[in-house]
Amino acid sequence: MSTAHAIENLRTALSCLPGVGPKSAQRMAYYLIERNREGARGIAAALMHALDSIQHCKRCNNLSETELCSLCSSTSRKHSLLCIVETPADLEAIEQTGSYKGSYFVLMGTISPLDGVGPDNIGIERLLEVLKEFDIEEIIIATNLTAEGETTAEFLTELLSTKDAASNIRLTRIARGVPVGGELEYIDRNTVARAINDRQEIDHKQQEPENS
Amino acid sequence: MSTAHAIENLRTALSCLPGVGPKSAQRMAYYLIERNREGARGIAAALMHALDSIQHCKRCNNLSETELCSLCSSTSRKHSLLCIVETPADLEAIEQTGSYKGSYFVLMGTISPLDGVGPDNIGIERLLEVLKEFDIEEIIIATNLTAEGETTAEFLTELLSTKDAASNIRLTRIARGVPVGGELEYIDRNTVARAINDRQEIDHKQQEPENS
Repeated sequence: MSTAHAIENLRTALSCLPGVGPKSAQRMAYYLIERNREGARGIAAALMHALDSIQHCKRCNNLSETELCSLCSSTSRKHSLLCIVETPADLEAIEQTGSYKGSYFVLMGTISPLDGVGPDNIGIERLLEVLKEFDIEEIIIATNLTAEGETTAEFLTELLSTKDAASNIRLTRIARGVPVGGELEYIDRNTVARAINDRQEIDHKQQEPENS
Repeated sequence: MSTAHAIENLRTALSCLPGVGPKSAQRMAYYLIERNREGARGIAAALMHALDSIQHCKRCNNLSETELCSLCSSTSRKHSLLCIVETPADLEAIEQTGSYKGSYFVLMGTISPLDGVGPDNIGIERLLEVLKEFDIEEIIIATNLTAEGETTAEFLTELLSTKDAASNIRLTRIARGVPVGGELEYIDRNTVARAINDRQEIDHKQQEPENS
């Protein structure tokens, strides 16, 4: 073997990253060791620190350094409104809009029978505990509009309709329709059909949607 | 901020990787902490080990865990033949053909005035020392056929032609032409022109190229 063992090990380790094949892993390994040792040290330290300090928030199930994450412990959020998302990245996407002031629940996955992920493998158990423990008025199901996300949304709808704990809770789903900036000509048929079916009353006095 | 600090740090650290933007870095960070803690530990350990153990081979300048790398210390290689490559990955590419049995010199870069990389920033100094110290009969310049690789090849040719240490050394460049499997119809004009100009005599008795 012409490559040093340590480089070979590093390449193997890096190829566990999502979207990184053997060639990219090799490029990264050489780059880190030859060109950016400071960066390499940074990654190693950040990894060790994250592994040591990150746990799940006991209310929203998101990754957090504290038992209760900053969102869940914030007094300025409306905790009776619960938005269910698949991943921390989805939560982040909603937070970045600045238009949602309720709390979240992060499933940390999505039901995907093809990948062997069932309801027991995502945070549903914990969600039911949260519903028992806290006073929730509305649940917004904000799983993705992919096949897996829709399956998960349907499962949640069914589950929550049959649970006593959720009997008085309003259940909503994020709106499906033409994305902002979208042109009907280039949008798929299902989306256009959904946008027609789910058309919204225009309020003549105030045309902007209300923030919740 | 809704994201845990440790995740944010990890994302920043990972975005120093080549070809990894903020979105990919975020995806990697979540993946490592949520789905593959074992992999995360593996990367941190491999990085620390590589940082501690990897140095440059004192002969070929390649990354190595020992003062002299396995290729340079091998007795089955022809050390009077020296192949100059840009990077360890290029060396690897040649090794994988199994058709080259000489030794190497790894420049660890390429002359690129636009990026502010001059001859002093790559391993030329060390190359001259190697030429003084060892008995070299032929140097194969195997830098890439990119603008930077060609510039580096020209610089090396000029440098080695004026050095006493290299006066008796045969200087060659890897062949340029139509890649194996290539169809003339789809190959760029320069390559076809080069393939015509550099045409090779056909040896009627033995048509396969000799291994060196």
